[in-house]
Amino acid sequence: MPAWKRNCGNDACPADKRAPVRDAVAEMTTMTTTAETVDAFHRGKFHLIQPLGQGHRSGMDAMLLAALVSCERPCRVADLGAGAGAAGMAVASRLEEAEVLLVERSPIMTDFARRSLALPENARFAARVAVLEADVSLNGKARAAAGLPDDAFDHVIMNPPFNDAADRRTPDRLKAEAHAMSDNLFETWIKTAGAIMKPGGQLSLIARPESIAEIIAACGRRVGGIEITPILPRAGENAVRILVTAIKQSRKRLVLRAPLIMHAEGAHRFSPQVDDFNNGRAAYRRR
Amino acid sequence: MPAWKRNCGNDACPADKRAPVRDAVAEMTTMTTTAETVDAFHRGKFHLIQPLGQGHRSGMDAMLLAALVSCERPCRVADLGAGAGAAGMAVASRLEEAEVLLVERSPIMTDFARRSLALPENARFAARVAVLEADVSLNGKARAAAGLPDDAFDHVIMNPPFNDAADRRTPDRLKAEAHAMSDNLFETWIKTAGAIMKPGGQLSLIARPESIAEIIAACGRRVGGIEITPILPRAGENAVRILVTAIKQSRKRLVLRAPLIMHAEGAHRFSPQVDDFNNGRAAYRRR
Repeated sequence: MPAWKRNCGNDACPADKRAPVRDAVAEMTTMTTTAETVDAFHRGKFHLIQPLGQGHRSGMDAMLLAALVSCERPCRVADLGAGAGAAGMAVASRLEEAEVLLVERSPIMTDFARRSLALPENARFAARVAVLEADVSLNGKARAAAGLPDDAFDHVIMNPPFNDAADRRTPDRLKAEAHAMSDNLFETWIKTAGAIMKPGGQLSLIARPESIAEIIAACGRRVGGIEITPILPRAGENAVRILVTAIKQSRKRLVLRAPLIMHAEGAHRFSPQVDDFNNGRAAYRRR
Repeated sequence: MPAWKRNCGNDACPADKRAPVRDAVAEMTTMTTTAETVDAFHRGKFHLIQPLGQGHRSGMDAMLLAALVSCERPCRVADLGAGAGAAGMAVASRLEEAEVLLVERSPIMTDFARRSLALPENARFAARVAVLEADVSLNGKARAAAGLPDDAFDHVIMNPPFNDAADRRTPDRLKAEAHAMSDNLFETWIKTAGAIMKPGGQLSLIARPESIAEIIAACGRRVGGIEITPILPRAGENAVRILVTAIKQSRKRLVLRAPLIMHAEGAHRFSPQVDDFNNGRAAYRRR
């Protein structure tokens, strides 16, 4: 976990600051017993049940990803590789007319998502969020049959798993699965995104800077008008993430935007703008 | 020309602020009569003869590109597609032990470069700068025979020509030639750069943000440890250029650096850092 994720300066800092609220044997369909936490996001506006100490844990990345979705009217949003559902639920929590489909192939993680949606704390939006256990890399008819029809979504969001040498060393099976990136991950996932979005629909993703070329190549002629925003922990530092949006069938040129800077100089807290994104008080709009 | 180039806040602002110093029929090997200017760079430390009103005119881009070269000891530098020689001469002017080869296929532009080197104002470094009329896209033996042997340079710099709809409308033949980008320009030029650099040698280039994926793809396995720095006119604005460096045979990950911001908020002048780069007082070093 990069250092900037450790400084979330927030009521909802699940991975680092908060003690687990609930350590329990999960009621799951697997043989595994898994300790878990219930973490508050958006300053308590929604809650997420996540496995503790194994599996991918959502935090800042998911909240920034969710901030990329901006729509005033009713809209349909697909969260590809949703994990426990943090990003998709953050969209549903902020946008009162959004209907969100959480797409995740791991039955363990979809179970977490379903249980989160059953929490009383999430009743405000739970009826607008559905969970689909499906593999994002499916193609054509198999994809549609799995519940992902073409031209159906106004927004597709994704925080695709990544791996590197450090991740591969982990013995954590759940995390390894979440972080196991195939060689063509962006190509595969963005192909699916391009298919299931309506014309004019928006793809949004968060990724590491070193994936920038792979992402642009995968966008290809499927989605255009790419906007890339580097995320810097502090002014002058290297980017730790990039935010990327693109529009289906747009032919506009790529735009490299000014960075988002997480922390003001010398400050431990988030900058006000980033704090707004992290807490569901604002969208980060396209230009 | 982007707006930020119009605000060079500098003694050397050839394209916009300065009246032509010398309008003359050029003594050239072509049939064309060409008005020209002699422009001061690095606050008068070197001068450049450039065609006026046609052809690519060098300015800020060339100075920023030159700032990417950092070497304390004697080093060999190739400027690919050197045009009138602004970037290469800026390197020779700042680095007293650099030997620079200006590589340019247009005989009109190499003539300008040779005449600039003959100016008394450039006597300080002229003996360390050579001009080679050659096509950067040559391959293998033809490239070596043209004067570009393999594994010969510590640094290769390039400000490759680009075109777009606006450029294609221009009836200016010289400019059209300078800006005529083949489909595989970066692939072709970076292939040459990779061949003629010593192992560990540094590629440096300046380009438009929309070329970022093409550049990274062209770097491929030839050069690694890519560092990309967006250039923003002002804080919060979109990038207008990217600075890219990479090292031959490096396997390090790509780094997306904090942007260079040309102008402080509300200021017409360059920021002190950018002013230093523009005037040959500092190098922009790799991390």
